[in-house]
Amino acid sequence: MPRYAFKIEYDGAPFAGWQRQKEHPSVQQAVEDALGRLQLKAPGIAAAGRTDAGVHALSQVAHADMERDWDPFRLSEALNYHLKPLPVAITAMARVGDDWHARFSATERRYLFRLLNRRAPAALSAGKVWQVSAPLEVAPMQEAARFLLGRHDFTTFRASECQADSPVRTLDQLDLERVQTPLGPEIHFHVRARSFLHNQVRSFVGTLERVGAGAWAPEDVRDALEARDRAACGPVCPPQGLYLAGVTYPDDPFA
Amino acid sequence: MPRYAFKIEYDGAPFAGWQRQKEHPSVQQAVEDALGRLQLKAPGIAAAGRTDAGVHALSQVAHADMERDWDPFRLSEALNYHLKPLPVAITAMARVGDDWHARFSATERRYLFRLLNRRAPAALSAGKVWQVSAPLEVAPMQEAARFLLGRHDFTTFRASECQADSPVRTLDQLDLERVQTPLGPEIHFHVRARSFLHNQVRSFVGTLERVGAGAWAPEDVRDALEARDRAACGPVCPPQGLYLAGVTYPDDPFA
Repeated sequence: MPRYAFKIEYDGAPFAGWQRQKEHPSVQQAVEDALGRLQLKAPGIAAAGRTDAGVHALSQVAHADMERDWDPFRLSEALNYHLKPLPVAITAMARVGDDWHARFSATERRYLFRLLNRRAPAALSAGKVWQVSAPLEVAPMQEAARFLLGRHDFTTFRASECQADSPVRTLDQLDLERVQTPLGPEIHFHVRARSFLHNQVRSFVGTLERVGAGAWAPEDVRDALEARDRAACGPVCPPQGLYLAGVTYPDDPFA
Repeated sequence: MPRYAFKIEYDGAPFAGWQRQKEHPSVQQAVEDALGRLQLKAPGIAAAGRTDAGVHALSQVAHADMERDWDPFRLSEALNYHLKPLPVAITAMARVGDDWHARFSATERRYLFRLLNRRAPAALSAGKVWQVSAPLEVAPMQEAARFLLGRHDFTTFRASECQADSPVRTLDQLDLERVQTPLGPEIHFHVRARSFLHNQVRSFVGTLERVGAGAWAPEDVRDALEARDRAACGPVCPPQGLYLAGVTYPDDPFA
């Protein structure tokens, strides 16, 4: 059966996350249902990153095996037609080989986190940012972030329900920038690794916020990492500022 | 009674526009109701730009006369508290003199229009952009926009129900730029004038889209302007890409 890889943009707000669940709407189910409108039996799909409830994607990547050959452009048009009116859109589509896998072929995931740093609540960006009223200092946050770079046991920064075999990951990037947007002063976190643990990015952001507020010193983050203890983590921040920004493949099917 | 000027950010989607109406929710009513929670009688408020149904504001400006003195910061905090959970936020507050008027003291209004130019529907930016599937050429659109700059009779580009005394306005800026955002390829229109006619910006954008699609030549826009005839206008574009971006006052109370 011909295999297709596709990029998906979605607003995570109405979904209980990427992964299909019995009782709650998921992005996976939305896409599988749309695929099911195109042939007798809906194919199962696999994705590069299983985003949590409320987390968005600028560019999730998934693949599906279809019963018949499709022109990739026609397939994305048909899917987008059947996805309406959900806030889910197929933004790219490509034919790939049978051994290509959206999850296992991926060599890097990139996340963006948007933090709105102002007193006034988010209005136009409601549900798209984490609003933090207290003024944050970015320099100590960036200093603290450097302790997290590289290969570590990230037990402190993963959810207790994380199902990964090992807590060891290699963090390749954790950069912060202050961005003056038309919607107010934001801090953007750019995070990059081969793979992530459950709640890892939100554990980073929630902990670094404590540093920006002056409640933690940058070195406290190093100590928390070295403790290898979930209890040493700062508060996990809410999901609505988090975006799966992109996935890297050695042989990019969308290039 | 002490007068306060304030900036307001709002998502226009749930509102029938800025202006108070009997049967439909309006941004004006939302803000007046919040003010009414702070004293016995809700004060009426005046705004710089009466945005249409579905139009957003990055920075609307209004003023209100309060029964008692307020610290401006406390007043904005109280208002934001009572505006919850509506997507309306007070982002700045200042005490102004009795002769200062949000509408009549304004010397310039600035609008932003966001057009998403791609096949896939808007997902994360749903309700915040006008999605146009056909690839648009920006250079001829910009060429056509130049015919509109300066002082003209804009009868062609105003709604038939426009209540302004004169159709003559001076357009100070109408610039287009292609912007590669994380949410896809957008075209941003930056528009600036002392004041605008009803539906003027949306009439410009809808007409210029025809030029970008190749259906109109740039000179057709000049001819449409010179016709001084509403029937000569291109299709008026939908409201959800339009943002009141800012208002200028000679003596900026928020500086």
